[in-house]
Amino acid sequence: MNNGDLLRDLPANLPEELVETLVESSTVRVERIVSTGHASPEGFWYDQARPELVLVVQGRARLEFDDGETLDLAPGGWVDIAAHRRHRVAWTTPDEPTVWLAVHY
Amino acid sequence: MNNGDLLRDLPANLPEELVETLVESSTVRVERIVSTGHASPEGFWYDQARPELVLVVQGRARLEFDDGETLDLAPGGWVDIAAHRRHRVAWTTPDEPTVWLAVHY
Repeated sequence: MNNGDLLRDLPANLPEELVETLVESSTVRVERIVSTGHASPEGFWYDQARPELVLVVQGRARLEFDDGETLDLAPGGWVDIAAHRRHRVAWTTPDEPTVWLAVHY
Repeated sequence: MNNGDLLRDLPANLPEELVETLVESSTVRVERIVSTGHASPEGFWYDQARPELVLVVQGRARLEFDDGETLDLAPGGWVDIAAHRRHRVAWTTPDEPTVWLAVHY
Protein backbone atom coordinates (compact mmCIF):
# COMPACT_ATOMS: atom_id res chain seq x y z
CA MET A 1 0.00 0.00 0.00
CA ASN A 2 1.34 3.40 -1.00
CA ASN A 3 0.90 5.50 2.12
CA GLY A 4 2.83 7.68 4.52
CA ASP A 5 2.90 10.66 6.84
CA LEU A 6 3.71 14.10 5.43
CA LEU A 7 4.79 15.33 8.87
CA ARG A 8 7.23 12.52 9.65
CA ASP A 9 10.97 12.66 8.99
CA LEU A 10 11.09 16.41 8.54
CA PRO A 11 14.64 17.62 8.05
CA ALA A 12 15.43 20.71 10.11
CA ASN A 13 17.74 22.32 7.61
CA LEU A 14 17.84 21.79 3.90
CA PRO A 15 20.13 23.37 1.34
CA GLU A 16 17.19 23.43 -1.07
CA GLU A 17 13.51 22.62 -0.97
CA LEU A 18 12.84 18.89 -0.70
CA VAL A 19 10.40 17.54 -3.28
CA GLU A 20 9.16 13.94 -3.12
CA THR A 21 6.69 12.39 -5.52
CA LEU A 22 3.92 10.47 -3.76
CA VAL A 23 1.86 9.58 -6.82
CA GLU A 24 2.58 9.83 -10.52
CA SER A 25 0.10 8.83 -13.20
CA SER A 26 -0.43 9.80 -16.82
CA THR A 27 -2.61 12.71 -15.69
CA VAL A 28 -1.50 13.76 -12.22
CA ARG A 29 1.56 14.10 -10.03
CA VAL A 30 1.22 14.54 -6.28
CA GLU A 31 4.23 15.77 -4.32
CA ARG A 32 5.25 16.53 -0.78
CA ILE A 33 7.37 19.66 -0.63
CA VAL A 34 9.31 20.70 2.49
CA SER A 35 10.64 24.25 2.78
CA THR A 36 12.80 25.42 5.67
CA GLY A 37 12.78 29.17 5.20
CA HIS A 38 13.27 28.87 1.46
CA ALA A 39 11.97 31.35 -1.10
CA SER A 40 12.24 31.43 -4.86
CA PRO A 41 15.17 33.48 -6.12
CA GLU A 42 14.35 37.15 -6.63
CA GLY A 43 12.98 37.64 -10.12
CA PHE A 44 12.33 33.92 -10.66
CA TRP A 45 8.82 32.87 -11.70
CA TYR A 46 7.32 29.43 -12.03
CA ASP A 47 5.50 29.20 -15.37
CA GLN A 48 3.94 25.75 -15.55
CA ALA A 49 2.12 24.06 -18.43
CA ARG A 50 -0.36 22.40 -16.05
CA PRO A 51 -2.51 23.78 -13.26
CA GLU A 52 -1.31 23.05 -9.72
CA LEU A 53 -3.23 22.92 -6.48
CA VAL A 54 -1.08 23.51 -3.40
CA LEU A 55 -2.05 23.05 0.23
CA VAL A 56 -0.03 24.04 3.29
CA VAL A 57 -0.21 21.26 5.88
CA GLN A 58 2.25 22.77 8.39
CA GLY A 59 4.12 26.07 8.60
CA ARG A 60 3.45 29.35 6.82
CA ALA A 61 4.16 30.69 3.38
CA ARG A 62 3.54 33.60 1.07
CA LEU A 63 3.02 33.21 -2.65
CA GLU A 64 3.49 36.09 -5.05
CA PHE A 65 2.01 36.40 -8.54
CA ASP A 66 3.45 38.44 -11.35
CA ASP A 67 0.48 40.81 -11.35
CA GLY A 68 1.51 41.83 -7.82
CA GLU A 69 -1.11 39.76 -5.99
CA THR A 70 0.12 37.93 -2.89
CA LEU A 71 -1.42 35.13 -0.86
CA ASP A 72 -0.53 34.12 2.69
CA LEU A 73 -1.03 30.45 3.52
CA ALA A 74 -1.23 28.82 6.95
CA PRO A 75 -2.14 25.18 7.68
CA GLY A 76 -5.27 24.30 5.74
CA GLY A 77 -4.70 27.10 3.23
CA TRP A 78 -4.85 26.07 -0.42
CA VAL A 79 -4.85 27.66 -3.85
CA ASP A 80 -5.45 26.36 -7.34
CA ILE A 81 -2.89 28.01 -9.60
CA ALA A 82 -3.93 28.17 -13.25
CA ALA A 83 -1.57 26.90 -15.94
CA HIS A 84 0.96 29.56 -16.94
CA ARG A 85 -0.01 31.83 -14.05
CA ARG A 86 3.44 33.05 -13.12
CA HIS A 87 4.14 32.74 -9.42
CA ARG A 88 6.93 32.38 -6.91
CA VAL A 89 7.36 31.48 -3.26
CA ALA A 90 8.05 34.87 -1.70
CA TRP A 91 8.60 33.58 1.84
CA THR A 92 8.34 30.56 4.11
CA THR A 93 8.63 30.70 7.87
CA PRO A 94 12.09 30.08 9.33
CA ASP A 95 10.46 28.87 12.58
CA GLU A 96 9.54 25.36 11.47
CA PRO A 97 9.48 23.32 8.27
CA THR A 98 6.67 24.28 5.91
CA VAL A 99 5.06 21.16 4.46
CA TRP A 100 3.07 21.40 1.23
CA LEU A 101 0.98 18.96 -0.73
CA ALA A 102 1.13 19.82 -4.43
CA VAL A 103 -1.19 18.33 -7.07
CA HIS A 104 -0.14 18.91 -10.67
CA TYR A 105 -2.98 17.96 -12.99
CA MET B 1 -8.41 33.08 -7.69
CA ASN B 2 -9.75 29.72 -6.56
CA ASN B 3 -8.42 29.39 -3.02
CA GLY B 4 -9.56 28.79 0.52
CA ASP B 5 -8.88 27.35 3.94
CA LEU B 6 -9.78 23.72 4.65
CA LEU B 7 -9.91 24.41 8.39
CA ARG B 8 -12.26 27.39 8.25
CA ASP B 9 -16.04 27.20 8.69
CA LEU B 10 -16.02 23.72 10.18
CA PRO B 11 -19.50 22.65 11.21
CA ALA B 12 -19.56 21.03 14.64
CA ASN B 13 -22.28 18.53 13.89
CA LEU B 14 -23.33 17.18 10.55
CA PRO B 15 -26.07 14.71 9.73
CA GLU B 16 -23.79 13.28 7.03
CA GLU B 17 -20.25 13.82 5.84
CA LEU B 18 -19.82 17.15 4.07
CA VAL B 19 -18.16 16.91 0.65
CA GLU B 20 -17.15 20.04 -1.28
CA THR B 21 -15.45 20.05 -4.65
CA LEU B 22 -12.44 22.39 -4.78
CA VAL B 23 -11.25 21.54 -8.29
CA GLU B 24 -12.84 19.54 -11.09
CA SER B 25 -11.14 18.94 -14.42
CA SER B 26 -11.42 16.29 -17.10
CA THR B 27 -8.85 14.19 -15.25
CA VAL B 28 -9.03 15.04 -11.56
CA ARG B 29 -11.46 16.00 -8.82
CA VAL B 30 -10.20 17.44 -5.54
CA GLU B 31 -12.56 17.53 -2.58
CA ARG B 32 -12.64 18.68 1.01
CA ILE B 33 -14.46 16.17 3.18
CA VAL B 34 -15.50 16.91 6.77
CA SER B 35 -16.48 14.05 9.07
CA THR B 36 -17.80 14.59 12.59
CA GLY B 37 -17.65 11.11 14.02
CA HIS B 38 -19.06 9.55 10.87
CA ALA B 39 -18.25 6.07 9.63
CA SER B 40 -19.43 4.17 6.58
CA PRO B 41 -22.43 1.96 7.24
CA GLU B 42 -21.52 -1.55 8.40
CA GLY B 43 -21.00 -3.76 5.37
CA PHE B 44 -20.77 -0.82 2.96
CA TRP B 45 -17.68 -0.65 0.73
CA TYR B 46 -16.51 2.10 -1.60
CA ASP B 47 -15.57 0.53 -4.93
CA GLN B 48 -14.34 3.34 -7.17
CA ALA B 49 -13.39 3.29 -10.83
CA ARG B 50 -10.51 5.72 -10.28
CA PRO B 51 -7.67 5.76 -7.78
CA GLU B 52 -8.03 8.20 -4.88
CA LEU B 53 -5.40 9.77 -2.68
CA VAL B 54 -6.70 10.91 0.71
CA LEU B 55 -4.91 13.03 3.28
CA VAL B 56 -6.05 13.79 6.82
CA VAL B 57 -5.42 17.47 7.59
CA GLN B 58 -7.11 17.56 11.01
CA GLY B 59 -8.64 14.90 13.25
CA ARG B 60 -8.24 11.14 13.22
CA ALA B 61 -9.66 8.33 11.16
CA ARG B 62 -9.43 4.63 10.50
CA LEU B 63 -9.84 3.10 7.08
CA GLU B 64 -10.68 -0.54 6.58
CA PHE B 65 -10.08 -2.61 3.46
CA ASP B 66 -12.04 -5.67 2.44
CA ASP B 67 -8.99 -7.92 2.88
CA GLY B 68 -9.07 -7.02 6.59
CA GLU B 69 -6.24 -4.49 6.48
CA THR B 70 -6.79 -1.29 8.49
CA LEU B 71 -5.00 2.03 8.43
CA ASP B 72 -5.04 4.70 11.13
CA LEU B 73 -4.61 8.26 9.91
CA ALA B 74 -3.69 11.37 11.92
CA PRO B 75 -2.87 14.83 10.54
CA GLY B 76 -0.35 14.43 7.72
CA GLY B 77 -1.34 10.81 7.13
CA TRP B 78 -2.15 9.91 3.54
CA VAL B 79 -2.87 6.84 1.45
CA ASP B 80 -3.22 6.23 -2.26
CA ILE B 81 -6.15 3.84 -2.72
CA ALA B 82 -6.02 1.86 -5.96
CA ALA B 83 -9.03 1.80 -8.27
CA HIS B 84 -11.54 -0.85 -7.19
CA ARG B 85 -9.75 -1.46 -3.90
CA ARG B 86 -12.79 -1.86 -1.68
CA HIS B 87 -12.60 0.26 1.44
CA ARG B 88 -14.72 2.00 4.04
CA VAL B 89 -14.31 4.58 6.77
CA ALA B 90 -14.37 2.45 9.91
CA TRP B 91 -14.14 5.36 12.36
CA THR B 92 -13.52 9.08 12.72
CA THR B 93 -12.88 10.81 16.00
CA PRO B 94 -15.92 12.28 17.77
CA ASP B 95 -13.64 14.82 19.50
CA GLU B 96 -13.24 17.28 16.62
CA PRO B 97 -14.10 17.49 12.93
CA THR B 98 -11.88 15.32 10.76
CA VAL B 99 -10.88 17.20 7.62
CA TRP B 100 -9.72 15.29 4.54
CA LEU B 101 -8.33 16.31 1.21
CA ALA B 102 -9.31 13.76 -1.43
CA VAL B 103 -7.81 13.62 -4.93
CA HIS B 104 -9.67 11.41 -7.41
CA TYR B 105 -7.53 10.95 -10.50
